[in-house]
Amino acid sequence: MKRVYERIALIGAGMIGCSLVQALRRAGAARVFAGYDLSPSVSEKARSLGIVDVVATSVADAVREAELVILAVPVRATAAVCEALAPVLRTEDVIVTDVGSTKVEVLARVARTLPFPERFVGAHPIAGTERSGPEAADASLFKGRRCLLTPTAGTRADALAEVRSLWEAAGAVVEEMDAALHDRALAYVSHLPHAAAFVLAAAAGEVAAGDDALGRAVAGLSGGGFADTTRIAASDPIMWRDVMLDNARPVLDAIERMDRMLGRLRQAIASGDGDAVARVIEEARSGRAAVIGARRSS
Amino acid sequence: MKRVYERIALIGAGMIGCSLVQALRRAGAARVFAGYDLSPSVSEKARSLGIVDVVATSVADAVREAELVILAVPVRATAAVCEALAPVLRTEDVIVTDVGSTKVEVLARVARTLPFPERFVGAHPIAGTERSGPEAADASLFKGRRCLLTPTAGTRADALAEVRSLWEAAGAVVEEMDAALHDRALAYVSHLPHAAAFVLAAAAGEVAAGDDALGRAVAGLSGGGFADTTRIAASDPIMWRDVMLDNARPVLDAIERMDRMLGRLRQAIASGDGDAVARVIEEARSGRAAVIGARRSS
Repeated sequence: MKRVYERIALIGAGMIGCSLVQALRRAGAARVFAGYDLSPSVSEKARSLGIVDVVATSVADAVREAELVILAVPVRATAAVCEALAPVLRTEDVIVTDVGSTKVEVLARVARTLPFPERFVGAHPIAGTERSGPEAADASLFKGRRCLLTPTAGTRADALAEVRSLWEAAGAVVEEMDAALHDRALAYVSHLPHAAAFVLAAAAGEVAAGDDALGRAVAGLSGGGFADTTRIAASDPIMWRDVMLDNARPVLDAIERMDRMLGRLRQAIASGDGDAVARVIEEARSGRAAVIGARRSS
Repeated sequence: MKRVYERIALIGAGMIGCSLVQALRRAGAARVFAGYDLSPSVSEKARSLGIVDVVATSVADAVREAELVILAVPVRATAAVCEALAPVLRTEDVIVTDVGSTKVEVLARVARTLPFPERFVGAHPIAGTERSGPEAADASLFKGRRCLLTPTAGTRADALAEVRSLWEAAGAVVEEMDAALHDRALAYVSHLPHAAAFVLAAAAGEVAAGDDALGRAVAGLSGGGFADTTRIAASDPIMWRDVMLDNARPVLDAIERMDRMLGRLRQAIASGDGDAVARVIEEARSGRAAVIGARRSS
């Protein structure tokens, strides 16, 4: 950490925001961490866990003395938060950053609502769990994980540098990416997996809820495969509702591509074409390896 | 283990078969474990790892002296194996069992090809990993996991009791289930998750293979969500091709139900209906809990 801030404000005391503050606290990034959450019991929990030092009663109250503001709210809440914090920020040099899973719409909201969008730096750590709230915070969540920054042509270089060093202090490997490319890529590696986990878990859940022999057999029967494949289906509904709506076009494109693949598999099974079934599975194996594997040089 | 066998024969030295033999060896279930695999290098690997004592060069060779035969082959290979072993089995009391993920078609093959189907006991442990081969064997894989037995009206009670105590010796919790119900239930808790993981990984892989900015961004970008959701997409293609074809009707029903749910999510996103998106996610959360949660009493 090159700079020690007097005060960093966290807006939204969920799992990701609290994990970042814990990591920054460990790195000695600020003297005071102030926290605000729409739910007073959540910010109070963050304080009682020693994650934030001070609980604020409003967005304005939280950011008044802050030099750096971290927005860790569901992405569609960004506009309201920016409107609330803009009039009261302490200095001309305050930096605002976020952790949201979508970037194009967040940047558009910032441009509409923040008087100084040049000091906003969009950030998205590629890390997380299905758990929510301050209790799930983990100071080492970002260690060695990628954090994508999506500066625009107007972003101030010093603001970008500070947010970069913030994430490096939290242990992340920082990369810059165009916001639109970020949203299209994340549609495949994160939003589509969530969509798949949601519909799989909801469909199996429909059956498990049935008061018949099949429902009774399905309820409680699963092994590790079902549990892992649907782990992220336990994610926060509000956060994910916002991501799906914010990134609608790329997500719908990704869903359509997966649905075409599902159609191929379905057709192969229905026609008893073993080679065609095996081909989909082979493509899944190699596709998984390509997505998970080492970064290609660009 | 109530009985110590002179010789147990394992047909198919994959991960599940080798894990079971390791567990049985640890429990002292037999004096000699003989192994056969279609691939000689695989059965030799199982011997060099100390999993089987003897490598057989044919199914007939493996089972000649055996009192118990474990079939751990892709389910559609069951018929050929039964045809090969039937003429040479040593005693009138030899028991044959399997570990396959489908049961109706396996039982039908056994009824067609085995002269004594009353001494065949269908078994399916609800445990596994995406890894394959003797190297992936784990003696404690079945500890505390459920193993479903699917006896028919004709199954001999002593054969059923012996297979039950075999699985209990391996640490499993044994339950009996009707074969058709087994297949319909497994379609939801195991086969559908595999189908979802396959099409998700294959769709993302298509994009990652693209020689454009999106392909380069997607390749190597994923976090833990993608990795977990697609973990089972790395499973063995031949084994899973057979499961999908064998259990086609229940799998297609399950795929159709998931596809309807995908249509709901898609429509909700396309129309910007946040409440409808959140409802699908809420159903996913509760559905996942119901499927994973404690067994309902039947």
